[in-house]
Amino acid sequence: MAEPRISSIDGKLAEEFAAPSHVEEVKDKMAAFAEHHAAAGRRVVLITSGGTKVPLESRTVRFLDNFSSGRRGACSAEYFMDSGYAVIFLHRHRSLYPYTRMFSTINMLDALQFRGEDGASGEVVVNQQVLPNIVKALKRYHEVKDGRLLLPIEFNTLSEYLHLLKAAAQALSTIGSKAMFYLAAAVSDFYIPASEMPEHKIQSSNGPLQLSMNMVPKILSPLVKDWAPQAFVISFKLETDAAILLDKARRALDTYRHQAVVANVLDSRRGYVVVVTPETQSELILTEEDVKNEVEIEERIVSNLTSAHEKFITQQVG
Amino acid sequence: MAEPRISSIDGKLAEEFAAPSHVEEVKDKMAAFAEHHAAAGRRVVLITSGGTKVPLESRTVRFLDNFSSGRRGACSAEYFMDSGYAVIFLHRHRSLYPYTRMFSTINMLDALQFRGEDGASGEVVVNQQVLPNIVKALKRYHEVKDGRLLLPIEFNTLSEYLHLLKAAAQALSTIGSKAMFYLAAAVSDFYIPASEMPEHKIQSSNGPLQLSMNMVPKILSPLVKDWAPQAFVISFKLETDAAILLDKARRALDTYRHQAVVANVLDSRRGYVVVVTPETQSELILTEEDVKNEVEIEERIVSNLTSAHEKFITQQVG
Repeated sequence: MAEPRISSIDGKLAEEFAAPSHVEEVKDKMAAFAEHHAAAGRRVVLITSGGTKVPLESRTVRFLDNFSSGRRGACSAEYFMDSGYAVIFLHRHRSLYPYTRMFSTINMLDALQFRGEDGASGEVVVNQQVLPNIVKALKRYHEVKDGRLLLPIEFNTLSEYLHLLKAAAQALSTIGSKAMFYLAAAVSDFYIPASEMPEHKIQSSNGPLQLSMNMVPKILSPLVKDWAPQAFVISFKLETDAAILLDKARRALDTYRHQAVVANVLDSRRGYVVVVTPETQSELILTEEDVKNEVEIEERIVSNLTSAHEKFITQQVG
Repeated sequence: MAEPRISSIDGKLAEEFAAPSHVEEVKDKMAAFAEHHAAAGRRVVLITSGGTKVPLESRTVRFLDNFSSGRRGACSAEYFMDSGYAVIFLHRHRSLYPYTRMFSTINMLDALQFRGEDGASGEVVVNQQVLPNIVKALKRYHEVKDGRLLLPIEFNTLSEYLHLLKAAAQALSTIGSKAMFYLAAAVSDFYIPASEMPEHKIQSSNGPLQLSMNMVPKILSPLVKDWAPQAFVISFKLETDAAILLDKARRALDTYRHQAVVANVLDSRRGYVVVVTPETQSELILTEEDVKNEVEIEERIVSNLTSAHEKFITQQVG
């Protein structure tokens, strides 16, 4: 397979994807965050999370999207912080968020009640039968906030994602191998270039819709080679067809020359993943016992990768 | 304009859109809800809210979506209940919800704190400086719950939406003109029939994506003529181009012969709408003063339509 030409990807990014206006400001913030934590002896992980929105019209009513609640990214962020990392959380607007993800399946008003019999106190308290883990989550949330361990950055569209990821890679390049990229977001493979996009809502009275979408440039290539060449980089591969999964994971490693691929199948992604590196292939599996004990597979993934990152750093130094 | 043939729409629905397995159960629930409230002298409104998901693969990774937070529907539901209506809230999974919509812009953990200085009480309370309206919202939420005024039904895909709306129309037909349909959901105009959909994730290695999408049958037609012919039916028209808006609204009324179209433009939708009926055209506008006083335009829309519904019922009876 021919290697993608880096310069052309970078050029395409500038030409066909509108950069968000705050990208330089965010980049400075990420660089300061990374330097601060690296100076304090912490490693820093950039987590991407959630799906990307691909507009079909420039005043957008319709868009293409990727299935992703952002659960894996949000959940992994918590385990990385538990392992001593500082986390830049580059996530889709309204996707799941560390610690607050526990509220995602309930109606918050069902978890609140007036304090005292008649509510005369005017105080509203959490019903801990509905939210049994709230005390633990709130404490940990405060610790993370006090320690400034989490820097949240939002994206919505594919364009925003691509530009912010580039900015993050450049911001983290200063801390070299202490940086990990954990690219869990579900990024669209297809887009409509701004120059080919209609301004207004596509009219259904014009008949059936023919869409022709270009391929999104493979940003992993300049990220690994150009923007953050010393970093420890993990990509994710999600397929619905288990038969092609590992082959695709190996091919990605051959093409981009990064450190690992976390490979998973849509239906079993919460209980089974394979961490593929150039030399190894580790199956991580939750047993029935694990599920009963509410173990999350992200704890295993993060444990596997933080060990590998540790080794990687030692080898770079040595 | 030739009228769509009803029988063909109904047939298409059965053939090309998979019905959710619980549709009959939901229909019975909606019929019981409507009859109970009509017997108690209440009118019933079916509100649809949020965007529809149109899968591109049968094991769905990618989908087409419509811009909609569900704010208009969730907000309108509250005003309808304040006006004495019982509400069936047919909404997209995770779109905004009546009363809880106030939490949508904040991180819930930022609104919670331990009670007492050191948190030794183990109680978690709401910080009412962060959520100043929580007491009012929680009281109203409890009233609505105690009065069983709100029946929430979720959809995710376009297919689920279409089948559940049909079921709702049939369920509400028994209460005749006391039923209002307030069709605020942003429904896709295009879809890929199940027979033409690939099973697995579309591979980007196959090159650029060509999509050919069929037009979604106009369900408003059988709804008005066949399923709920006595009901008071409101559709919504959202455009990005103000120049074509009113013309499209009038054409919809001519075609489907329902009672009103709420017409709005994407950029100004929170401060300006036009309620178009066969005989009238009412502009509803929020002034700067209104905005300062946190008046929501949905209050005006609901007030306009409940009056019109009242007249409509009187005319039917007379």
